[in-house]
Amino acid sequence: MTDIPKLQERLREFADKRDWKQFHSPKNLSMALIVEAGELAEHFQWLTQEESFNLANEKLEAVGEELADIFVYLVRLADQLDIDLAKVVERKIDLNEAKYPADLVRGSARKYTEYQ
Amino acid sequence: MTDIPKLQERLREFADKRDWKQFHSPKNLSMALIVEAGELAEHFQWLTQEESFNLANEKLEAVGEELADIFVYLVRLADQLDIDLAKVVERKIDLNEAKYPADLVRGSARKYTEYQ
Amino acid sequence: MTDIPKLQERLREFADKRDWKQFHSPKNLSMALIVEAGELAEHFQWLTQEESFNLANEKLEAVGEELADIFVYLVRLADQLDIDLAKVVERKIDLNEAKYPADLVRGSARKYTEYQ
Amino acid sequence: MTDIPKLQERLREFADKRDWKQFHSPKNLSMALIVEAGELAEHFQWLTQEESFNLANEKLEAVGEELADIFVYLVRLADQLDIDLAKVVERKIDLNEAKYPADLVRGSARKYTEYQ
Repeated sequence: MTDIPKLQERLREFADKRDWKQFHSPKNLSMALIVEAGELAEHFQWLTQEESFNLANEKLEAVGEELADIFVYLVRLADQLDIDLAKVVERKIDLNEAKYPADLVRGSARKYTEYQ
Repeated sequence: MTDIPKLQERLREFADKRDWKQFHSPKNLSMALIVEAGELAEHFQWLTQEESFNLANEKLEAVGEELADIFVYLVRLADQLDIDLAKVVERKIDLNEAKYPADLVRGSARKYTEYQ
Repeated sequence: MTDIPKLQERLREFADKRDWKQFHSPKNLSMALIVEAGELAEHFQWLTQEESFNLANEKLEAVGEELADIFVYLVRLADQLDIDLAKVVERKIDLNEAKYPADLVRGSARKYTEYQ
Repeated sequence: MTDIPKLQERLREFADKRDWKQFHSPKNLSMALIVEAGELAEHFQWLTQEESFNLANEKLEAVGEELADIFVYLVRLADQLDIDLAKVVERKIDLNEAKYPADLVRGSARKYTEYQ
């Protein structure tokens, strides 16, 4: 199942069956999401950038779990606020294509950080 | 386009065309992700939970943009580490189904937080 | 010992004795700090605001430890960048006194969030 | 003014005069703190570790402001929960002295990350 709306529906059913909607206020979900993002960052905090590409299997699996946790809260938050996640993502990519023209920003760290 | 692997491919091409792979180390991406998660949380920090459900249109749009930013970094990170995002998400939901049986945790805040 | 510069010195000696300066780049310390801030937020994510005032003793102690962790990384970061923490804090308070005049913002949630 | 309890008192008065205690629930303050920690991390996200030591003056000043913001919320949170910040920090340093004996962990990245 790689389709965002289908995953979103499955996650909604999961929460509904457990009466968790009451905890899943957008405020709480935004906290839960950043808490998971912190657990993700923890895996990388003392690594060099090179090391961060080459994780041992066990660590890679743990990172995968954090990514999943973040995805779950992201989709729940979109669902609770009736935001069409796939749509805002596509719009964002379109905006970025216009904002960072490949010809201008290619291969330049300085231009990259300037453009942010 | 609501299919995760297709969005992932589009985002990879976007980064490749700009030679941004060098900045997109997993370490850097994990930082960028939590920075965006912070911008998301900022919208909710002083709201009550009730207020967080009822955002004005302008704020709702801004929140949608933050969700998109988080999604983009999440997918880029999975891509850089060769993690199959949809797969780890599905595995996570399966695990949660087993970990939080609906019959046991339904409708109970205490049980909910205990189970976390 | 409640004096910031003295705590800063003690923490510097602690890191120096362990040759940890190499890990304590400002980049890494900013990650470590937000990771701890995530552990702090985790304690509060599913609580109501009222509940967050009334923590059980065990939880209160755990929260105290997170606050200490954040303080340690905050002071280390100031130290590594030669920032006078007490001075920037005082300047910030002065700025806030001017930015949020008590007469104008008192007792109004709307004014509070507007002013942010 | 470099004494933590004195800064804490000044910050409490500041909030009291504005009737902000109602917004400063520990839950909200933990969110505000991590939001500021995200703004701090934003300054470092695309930098190498070397670059993160050598910030331009303007950026250094901005980083100082973020550190001040984090400090303010940290102290407010301790105040609202009646946690003696200086005391938990000292206890933490004592614990770390015992947990990471200088002789054992010195100069070894591997030992450092293992010990975390």
